[in-house]
Amino acid sequence: MYWYDGALQKTPIAAFDLTDRGLTLGDGIFDTASAHNGRLFLREAHLERFAAAAEALDIPFPGKQASEALDALAAAVGDGVVRLTLTRGGGARGLAPPKGPKPLLFGAAAPPPPPFPVLSLAATAIRRNETSPAARVKVLPYLDAILGFEEARAKGADEALFLNTQGRVACLASANLFAVFGGQLATPPLSDGVLAGTVRAFVLGKAADLGLKAIERSLDFSDLLRADALFATSSLKLVAPCRSLEAASFASVENEVVLRLQAALRDAVAAACGRL
Amino acid sequence: MYWYDGALQKTPIAAFDLTDRGLTLGDGIFDTASAHNGRLFLREAHLERFAAAAEALDIPFPGKQASEALDALAAAVGDGVVRLTLTRGGGARGLAPPKGPKPLLFGAAAPPPPPFPVLSLAATAIRRNETSPAARVKVLPYLDAILGFEEARAKGADEALFLNTQGRVACLASANLFAVFGGQLATPPLSDGVLAGTVRAFVLGKAADLGLKAIERSLDFSDLLRADALFATSSLKLVAPCRSLEAASFASVENEVVLRLQAALRDAVAAACGRL
Repeated sequence: MYWYDGALQKTPIAAFDLTDRGLTLGDGIFDTASAHNGRLFLREAHLERFAAAAEALDIPFPGKQASEALDALAAAVGDGVVRLTLTRGGGARGLAPPKGPKPLLFGAAAPPPPPFPVLSLAATAIRRNETSPAARVKVLPYLDAILGFEEARAKGADEALFLNTQGRVACLASANLFAVFGGQLATPPLSDGVLAGTVRAFVLGKAADLGLKAIERSLDFSDLLRADALFATSSLKLVAPCRSLEAASFASVENEVVLRLQAALRDAVAAACGRL
Repeated sequence: MYWYDGALQKTPIAAFDLTDRGLTLGDGIFDTASAHNGRLFLREAHLERFAAAAEALDIPFPGKQASEALDALAAAVGDGVVRLTLTRGGGARGLAPPKGPKPLLFGAAAPPPPPFPVLSLAATAIRRNETSPAARVKVLPYLDAILGFEEARAKGADEALFLNTQGRVACLASANLFAVFGGQLATPPLSDGVLAGTVRAFVLGKAADLGLKAIERSLDFSDLLRADALFATSSLKLVAPCRSLEAASFASVENEVVLRLQAALRDAVAAACGRL
């Protein structure tokens, strides 16, 4: 199901402006949320992040439309994935943004991927470029993520680990990463080139309730190897235990902290949407 | 003028697949060439680079269509800019490329910008990410270039200088950069995160004919400050002298090497297309 020009439509084919800068230059943002029982999990967090991303790129944010599109797609798909895309709209050739931008908002809903997948990780040689503001925003350019992901898959892994240009741990191709040390959780700070994941924020905020200490701090690859468990977070994966990173194995699937976080996510989804 | 679905059309509006990965993930490439008298300058070099970019991203290359589109747009615009875009086409949600991709090719022609512009440069804090293969390919993701360009313009400059993650000189937002030291030209190697510019290659290949020595070597910011002249190259700017870099001024406009290269470009355009 798709949302375009203010309404739901069944086909992805739409009358589209080929000068749209989202298409020609990657000049736009998106956001992906999971729907359960026709309702969005962490709905407000997603809308706030989407608005903040628009502000970061100085794209006027059509808040009412975005809100309507999210709900319409969630209701239409029931259980699934809802994605909204916002581009800067059409423009003349060249890098300079148009003076009076007419942003384009559209959306799509898709079937749900399995929650809580178990992942094997391989490091990619492509570095996450934390020097760019775009590294902390869910922008359309995902080519580095695609290339790193394919590199990891070619090695037989499920996901790619990105270090940043300083050699510190950043994130996976489409997820944040946490390391568990005893009862402590650590995840890289946004300044290391990390997207402000909604489930990342949920975990950081929920940890204290679970008797855990959660901190944002820079991590080296060797820190990961010393961890008791690793897990990825994303709107779709929720809390995904990592069973391996390159040659190292982790008992993340049975790690008590990971299990408690998964249970907390299940409860939160049920509270917000009725059930997982 | 636009080219879509195998034919010229006057409107940029087209029936477009909203699942196109060029739009949703920046998963595609483009190429921009200048047309004079209805003919493309460095036509074969552009087609070869476009094909190489497609190969780098493993996108099947519709060579015959691309060739036809280039010529049709050049003939239609007469004097101007011709751009072709090739995306991986539509796909299901997620990073994994579709198994049987149906790439989308489309094009546009626009009026010509002035050749040989004189540029002031400001350095951007965003680094060119030479660790990504995408740094050497004309890929759709241009958001870092846009953000760096806007940062430079906010400082009153015309273009942005990007260093790479190692702190070495890479390029401008939409041009390659050369430094002139006496009768010697130097430009960063592709491995420093540089696009294989067609005019860059022309200059490197033509230098010997003009009694100049041209080399590819890594440059530091301080090397640029020691240069007699700086100039940018691109398909549209051709050879653009840089009059300043941050607080430093350069007599690039009257530099003999720059003038000889501009004359050589003028001659080459005239030979290929009839006149500049």
